[in-house]
Amino acid sequence: MTRAQGEALSRTGRLLQAIVAYDGTDFSGFQVQAEQRTVQGVLEETLVTITQESIRVVGSGRTDSGVHALGQVIAFRTCWRHELDSLQRGWNALLPKDVAVMSLCEAHEGFHPRFSAASRTYRYTIWDHPVRNPLMQRTSLWVAYSLDVEAMRQATQLLVGEHDFATFGRPPKGENTIRQVIQAAWTQTGNVLALDIQANAFLYRMVRSIVGTLLQVGRGDLSVREFAARFAACDRSQAGSTAPACGLCLMAVHYETEFRH
Amino acid sequence: MTRAQGEALSRTGRLLQAIVAYDGTDFSGFQVQAEQRTVQGVLEETLVTITQESIRVVGSGRTDSGVHALGQVIAFRTCWRHELDSLQRGWNALLPKDVAVMSLCEAHEGFHPRFSAASRTYRYTIWDHPVRNPLMQRTSLWVAYSLDVEAMRQATQLLVGEHDFATFGRPPKGENTIRQVIQAAWTQTGNVLALDIQANAFLYRMVRSIVGTLLQVGRGDLSVREFAARFAACDRSQAGSTAPACGLCLMAVHYETEFRH
Repeated sequence: MTRAQGEALSRTGRLLQAIVAYDGTDFSGFQVQAEQRTVQGVLEETLVTITQESIRVVGSGRTDSGVHALGQVIAFRTCWRHELDSLQRGWNALLPKDVAVMSLCEAHEGFHPRFSAASRTYRYTIWDHPVRNPLMQRTSLWVAYSLDVEAMRQATQLLVGEHDFATFGRPPKGENTIRQVIQAAWTQTGNVLALDIQANAFLYRMVRSIVGTLLQVGRGDLSVREFAARFAACDRSQAGSTAPACGLCLMAVHYETEFRH
Repeated sequence: MTRAQGEALSRTGRLLQAIVAYDGTDFSGFQVQAEQRTVQGVLEETLVTITQESIRVVGSGRTDSGVHALGQVIAFRTCWRHELDSLQRGWNALLPKDVAVMSLCEAHEGFHPRFSAASRTYRYTIWDHPVRNPLMQRTSLWVAYSLDVEAMRQATQLLVGEHDFATFGRPPKGENTIRQVIQAAWTQTGNVLALDIQANAFLYRMVRSIVGTLLQVGRGDLSVREFAARFAACDRSQAGSTAPACGLCLMAVHYETEFRH
C-alpha cells in the first residue's frame, strides 16, 4: 500500500476530529504527493513537530489542486495527553498562513471523515463583470460576459433529487454514478454569483463540470432544454468544459450527529 | 517640485477618468515612491507602454501601504486618439493581477479626482473568530476575542455628523480637523464584521484610528461613554492603536455628478 492509499486510521491513541480551512491557491491539492506542497502534507509535518509522533491525517475527501475549503473535516489518532485547546493553538501557530485548524475535538470511536459523512456542501463563486476583480482573483472565476442567471437557475433546479450524474463526472472504481443532490441554488450579490450545492456524495470533478455546463446555459450557448437532454444522456462527453478550481470551496461536511463548534 | 508632489494635471490631450481596484497587500501604497512597488507607479509604467507617452496619473487620495481599493478614482491626460475601450483592454492586459481598471471614460474639463470629490466611502473588515481565516487573511483584520458589536454600534453612531475628529487623525498642512461623517454603520454576517463609513473627507489614518478605538469598546476596555469623552477631547493621544491596513478598503469616491458605469 502506498502512503497516498493509506486511508485507514491507526488503532492506538485518542481519535480526534478537526475542521480545517485553507486557501488552495498555493497547494497541489489536499492529498499527500511526493515533492508537492499539499494540505495533508503540511498538516502532518506540523503535527509531528508538536506531538513528536508520526501521524497520518485522514480527510473527508481529496480536494483538487487550487480548490479551497472552509469546512474540510479530518481525523487522526494521537497519544497527546494534554488539553486539546493547547494542541489546536500550537498547531495553528506552526501552520502557514494559508491553512488553519478552525476547531478540534474528540471523535466517537468508529468515526471516519469520509465514510461517516452523510453529505457535503460546496460553493462555486463567479465574478461576473467585464473587468477582473483583483480582490477576488484567488477565490472566484472571472466571467467577462453577462450571464443569464435566470436560465442558469432553471437548469440548476433539474439537478436536485436522486439522478444519474454520469454526464458530470466519473465515479471512484467500482461505484455507480447515482448521486442525490439535496440542495442547489444560486445567490447573486452585485456582480458576485455563487452556487451552493449539497449532495450525499460527488463524482470526481462533478461540481466543476456542472458549473462549466451551466456557464454554457448562462452564455446562451445551450438552452435549459438542451441542458436537460445532456444531463439525461448520462454521457461524460456531453458536459461543458470543467470550470477552474479557483472558484470552488468545500464549505461543510455533514454527519448524522452534527459536528459543530 | 518632486515627482510625488506633482498633483496638477497637465494641460494637453484628452482628460480621462478611471475607477481602479487593487489588492494592496503587495504594494507600498498608492503614491509613487522611489524603488517601491506602488499602485500609481504600476499604472503609469503600463500606460507608457500602451500610449508611448509619459503620463502622470492623479488619484483621489493616497491609500497607505497594504490598504485595498475597489473604487479608487484616477485622472490623467493623454493624446490617445482611439476608442477608450481598447485603451482599457490593453491596459488591463498589461497590469499585474492585483490591479485592474474597472472603468474608463472622458472627464469633464476641470475634473480633479481629489479636489472635485464630494465624499468617500471606506470599508473596514474584521474576521471575529478564535481562529484566523486563511481565505480572508489578505483582506481583513483577525480579532480572536468575541466583540460586543452592540456597544461598537452605539459608539459608532456618535461619529455621524459634523465634528472635530482631532482625536482620530492629523490633517494635511494648513487644514483643520473638522470633518462631516455622512454615514457609519456595522454589518455582521456570521463571523465577518464590516464598518462602512462615508465622510466628506478623512484625516490621515482616520478610519484605522476610529476602528482601533472602537475595538477597545468591543473588547470591553472602554465604555461607550468613555469613547464619547475621548472623541470630545480632540486629543490625538486619546485614540486607541491604529488598526492594521489589511482590513481597510476604499470602496467609492463620490462626486456631485456621479461617475458610474
